[in-house]
Amino acid sequence: MGNQPTSSQTACFEAGIKFGSLYHQFAGTPVSPESAESLECAIEESIENQPHCQAVGVDIDTDALADVLAESTASYTELTGQFLDVEIDIEYESQTVHAEMHLEDGYPMMRITSVEEHCES
Amino acid sequence: MGNQPTSSQTACFEAGIKFGSLYHQFAGTPVSPESAESLECAIEESIENQPHCQAVGVDIDTDALADVLAESTASYTELTGQFLDVEIDIEYESQTVHAEMHLEDGYPMMRITSVEEHCES
Amino acid sequence: MGNQPTSSQTACFEAGIKFGSLYHQFAGTPVSPESAESLECAIEESIENQPHCQAVGVDIDTDALADVLAESTASYTELTGQFLDVEIDIEYESQTVHAEMHLEDGYPMMRITSVEEHCES
Amino acid sequence: MGNQPTSSQTACFEAGIKFGSLYHQFAGTPVSPESAESLECAIEESIENQPHCQAVGVDIDTDALADVLAESTASYTELTGQFLDVEIDIEYESQTVHAEMHLEDGYPMMRITSVEEHCES
Repeated sequence: MGNQPTSSQTACFEAGIKFGSLYHQFAGTPVSPESAESLECAIEESIENQPHCQAVGVDIDTDALADVLAESTASYTELTGQFLDVEIDIEYESQTVHAEMHLEDGYPMMRITSVEEHCES
Repeated sequence: MGNQPTSSQTACFEAGIKFGSLYHQFAGTPVSPESAESLECAIEESIENQPHCQAVGVDIDTDALADVLAESTASYTELTGQFLDVEIDIEYESQTVHAEMHLEDGYPMMRITSVEEHCES
Repeated sequence: MGNQPTSSQTACFEAGIKFGSLYHQFAGTPVSPESAESLECAIEESIENQPHCQAVGVDIDTDALADVLAESTASYTELTGQFLDVEIDIEYESQTVHAEMHLEDGYPMMRITSVEEHCES
Repeated sequence: MGNQPTSSQTACFEAGIKFGSLYHQFAGTPVSPESAESLECAIEESIENQPHCQAVGVDIDTDALADVLAESTASYTELTGQFLDVEIDIEYESQTVHAEMHLEDGYPMMRITSVEEHCES
């Protein structure tokens, strides 16, 4: 029948929810080098609203945006994983999880980089 | 077989594209009174990237957000038309279109309020 | 001050709303050649719910999907305009508008192809 | 510095990704009792494309849709957690995770219900 999740497993589940939410809410947003900063800020603040989410850091790669636009007649493109680096910190009960998203072989790979027990405040 | 669209009809089509894009890109975004301003800014700047879009004004009703949250155990909710007022100006060839979105009877109603020919610069 | 929109201008606005909605609701959806058909069906039926929308036809290019996946280690990709052909028919008052979306120079171009007055039933 | 994730923690992270993806990709989709079934099917097949995702079951509550529409002049509404029940099975290395989403106190609560080690095939 399986076991109920431990605190650290639930913390990892919560981290995953935030990554999936972030990616699929904002993928497809029209973006240009000029509008990237306001979008970074909105993504960070919106996902930080979600439960157990301590901090979100979003970097949209404006050099990569400029490279894509240099080969296009358009002045903007759509946000995809190609342009996104993300770091998220989750705290759930006594557990802290740090996870990141980076492009790997053209795929926006999401990974947990650290699971740690902390002293509960 | 029907006619090709006139400039004013295409301008109205472009206005519709922007409203549909804005609504369905950002509906569902986690939002709180504290994060509303960064989201307004990102929505405006992202949609202004789209062709023929002169200006976008977005107002998220933080009072309405606070009212919803006062009746909830959650500290945030999801962006829906219930919280959104939008104005968009389109210029296409010699035509200027102004359109707005407001809540009417619980439905986020999108309307063209003005179609005008201007002197082309 | 500009003029109130005519029926044909409003019909074109409504067509634009449907295209913007369709694109920004479903762009980013995980898709493979095997899952393309159910997604086509869901997109058509969901957008046909919207007001004044008589018919929606969606074609996801499974050959193009297969080509992209052949160069990747992944078994799916994200829905973008690169894979989408769409036709929409709008009826508003006495006006019928037909509009289409196809890829042009790498950009998912949305165009009105016909505006026609019909006998109201 | 924290630890690298275990297989079971990564399996839980993967489960979270699928729930966040599913919810934020499809929230806001126009839906009616008549179009619910095609949307259920598309959601299931699209998310099953994602890595380590063995099975997805989606149930859209058409009775709840009908109740909302009975109090409205509209013939459709937008998909939200209010109408959604979801079950997802993840297999990652030797771990199987089962997770569910149901409405609890008005909030679409996502929970892991079982973590289990299986014999690797």
